[in-house]
Amino acid sequence: MNKLWSDGLGRLDPYVPGEQPRGAPLIKLNTNENPYPPSPAVRAALKGAANADLRLYPDPEGAALKAVIAQMHGLLPAHVFLGNGSDEVLAHVFRALLMHPLPILFPDVTYSFYPVYCALFGIAFEAVPLDAGFNVRVEDYARPNGGIVLPNPNAPTGIAIGLPQLRDLLKQNPGSVVVVDEAYVDFGADSAVSQVLDYANLLVIQTLSKSRSLAGLRVGFAIGDAGLIEALNIVKGSFNSYPLGRLALAGAEAALLDTAHFEATRRQVMASRDALTQDLQQLGFEVLPSSANFVFARHARFSGRDLQQQLRERGILVRHFAKPRIDEFLRISIGTAGECEALVRALRDVLAQAATSAA
Amino acid sequence: MNKLWSDGLGRLDPYVPGEQPRGAPLIKLNTNENPYPPSPAVRAALKGAANADLRLYPDPEGAALKAVIAQMHGLLPAHVFLGNGSDEVLAHVFRALLMHPLPILFPDVTYSFYPVYCALFGIAFEAVPLDAGFNVRVEDYARPNGGIVLPNPNAPTGIAIGLPQLRDLLKQNPGSVVVVDEAYVDFGADSAVSQVLDYANLLVIQTLSKSRSLAGLRVGFAIGDAGLIEALNIVKGSFNSYPLGRLALAGAEAALLDTAHFEATRRQVMASRDALTQDLQQLGFEVLPSSANFVFARHARFSGRDLQQQLRERGILVRHFAKPRIDEFLRISIGTAGECEALVRALRDVLAQAATSAA
Repeated sequence: MNKLWSDGLGRLDPYVPGEQPRGAPLIKLNTNENPYPPSPAVRAALKGAANADLRLYPDPEGAALKAVIAQMHGLLPAHVFLGNGSDEVLAHVFRALLMHPLPILFPDVTYSFYPVYCALFGIAFEAVPLDAGFNVRVEDYARPNGGIVLPNPNAPTGIAIGLPQLRDLLKQNPGSVVVVDEAYVDFGADSAVSQVLDYANLLVIQTLSKSRSLAGLRVGFAIGDAGLIEALNIVKGSFNSYPLGRLALAGAEAALLDTAHFEATRRQVMASRDALTQDLQQLGFEVLPSSANFVFARHARFSGRDLQQQLRERGILVRHFAKPRIDEFLRISIGTAGECEALVRALRDVLAQAATSAA
Repeated sequence: MNKLWSDGLGRLDPYVPGEQPRGAPLIKLNTNENPYPPSPAVRAALKGAANADLRLYPDPEGAALKAVIAQMHGLLPAHVFLGNGSDEVLAHVFRALLMHPLPILFPDVTYSFYPVYCALFGIAFEAVPLDAGFNVRVEDYARPNGGIVLPNPNAPTGIAIGLPQLRDLLKQNPGSVVVVDEAYVDFGADSAVSQVLDYANLLVIQTLSKSRSLAGLRVGFAIGDAGLIEALNIVKGSFNSYPLGRLALAGAEAALLDTAHFEATRRQVMASRDALTQDLQQLGFEVLPSSANFVFARHARFSGRDLQQQLRERGILVRHFAKPRIDEFLRISIGTAGECEALVRALRDVLAQAATSAA
């Protein structure tokens, strides 16, 4: 802490993203990236946009990209908000919609950026426990609150809830914004975007980082009632007029329009996930039922931290969270079929070595 | 105002950026963009980075780009902070370094985003009047304060202060962060980066949007004492782990390394500015002495608003601020030599028509 810092700044505890190795030859299953490259149309659009017009500011409204997103869902551009990755969108959501006298609610096991945003903006929260099977019970959110944030599927569990449960949650909380963070929705959950016109308190967040293979481009968006979007525009306009550059806008548009590439790659990821789940179960892992591009698994006899380290020694990165309730688990991103096989071989090797040294 | 919005949100009054016409054939001298394209090396770097690795997150630290910036100035990467345009950097600066019990200080005529940030973060400020010639007098800042923000050269006046005055300001305020916003410094002012190792309270902000012709890429940075940079890292890590995508990082690095393109284009802009200043004076304008890539000018007989509208009718966009003290002025970005000549012809036409209709 430095006396020149803003008051209280030293109390903030930033989010720690998964490791991004610089040029190392590791198999990287630790940050839920897509194992497949983005659509060739994205690369063509980016090459086209790398032109002399980069001297000019981008469209601060991102009108063309908003129109594409709106049209995909039969909505209007006024239902869409764009941001520099869904993390920036979420930050603006906390600032614009979740600062109220009552605490906000989110699951006790969830995306660990949410409490960080709360600290940044001085928002009180209550962590609502998942049930013993790590499921969200929407009836647990029937209490006075300043807003609700729910990833669907949840992270790092991968478990999704269905639209009927989500509608119950929305009806139960008409005076609160319900933020559904759908970073992983395209890998098997039902999107709440279909409900936007029916619930003025629903805000859905999506990203191009996962199912569109564009973590390196930084584009996320929110879809919701125009009144909620207006609040986000006020905060964005008070923070940074041009969060998306010309390349991000062009690349995102091309990615969203290439439905065939999207369908093919997400189906490959889901098939690999199901195969990996079976392989892990055969190795003695409990694997939570995942609707995401990762699995969350624990072994009856080995700690998550040990397994993570042993895998790292074998050139494979996975993620471990040293947190209550999930300390035993590994979060494993779905790689290519070959990467998943390499992971299974490495785990088999780790378990065999342990059996030998125990004998 | 909507009851679902965060408390007090309706009181925020966002910044309004200059118009970005969509595909119109206008001469655009309203948002201080560079009239010349970015370095060819930038375009090559962007095309190279538009590859399969876009599926991966970027380096959250931006280590390679920080190293380039640090090396340019004989500093360390720990002296550098990166952001999604200098507007995002400024937003984080206000949050990380300017929230104190005392009001912060900035000129009464300056970048109009500063009071917007203050409203967003609940920071009190005092606007310190420029003198009658629109100059900053550093002695006016010798009063208790929670921080000082000073663009150098100032915007929209274009007037710069020298390093001796800036050092006086830094010595006068050892307990306050002095933020020097150098968005336009490369067009003729002295950068305070040379003072960073001597003053732990100095933070310098720069951007690639102006002198590097990359307004469309969104890259800005701060340079200062490692203790100040640490505060910015805390806020960034609590807001968005990956503000710069892979293309922004690659393009920015290439731009900063092409010194020849940078020198050639900024010198052309400065030469055009000096020629335009003379032409405007001959047409009866008072032109403030500019060290930026724009001029701020008023005519003895015509209002700023009228002139702006008459130019618009002739296909030329310039900026007018309907604000106290500067309502008579036009802010005119420096275009190519041809664009500057077209502007002068249009103004000559406007003035001639007015003379005819008055006769």
